[in-house]
Amino acid sequence: MITVRVLVRLKPGILDVQGAAVKRALGGLGFADLEDLRIGKVVDLAIDANGEEHARARVDEMCRKLLANPILEDYTIEVVGDLAAPRSGR
Amino acid sequence: MITVRVLVRLKPGILDVQGAAVKRALGGLGFADLEDLRIGKVVDLAIDANGEEHARARVDEMCRKLLANPILEDYTIEVVGDLAAPRSGR
Repeated sequence: MITVRVLVRLKPGILDVQGAAVKRALGGLGFADLEDLRIGKVVDLAIDANGEEHARARVDEMCRKLLANPILEDYTIEVVGDLAAPRSGR
Repeated sequence: MITVRVLVRLKPGILDVQGAAVKRALGGLGFADLEDLRIGKVVDLAIDANGEEHARARVDEMCRKLLANPILEDYTIEVVGDLAAPRSGR
């Protein structure tokens, strides 16, 4: 079983209304040192796959089909761990 | 300016309704190899701070005051980069 983390974020040009509201609220709480804040989604998956490349390909397919909206969002896939792989060395 | 990434996730025992719905939908699309899926938030911040430790402390304060609900959620803080630090060496 392989654990994968997907980060789904609004594309740079898209207004992040939620992020703007939170940034403003933090400003009101005294965090004047905050320069920018944007909010996205993290999706933690566990998938039954043969190796990292296979897991990454399957998760990429999930992103394209459901997890991300390609018009508004970008996504990045990070393979966190492979429970079947040996813990040390290769 | 230091960029920091905060991951806010429901605590392990808390039912993730959104994640369960997405997992079910992916199952319906043929992703039978998906074993688990949970959804959280990623908050990307840029903060004007003196070094990583200072940035981390400030963001931890933001999490405690606003970004995370300590009853339902856990958070992890990852310092992504320090624009003031030299690119190579120390």
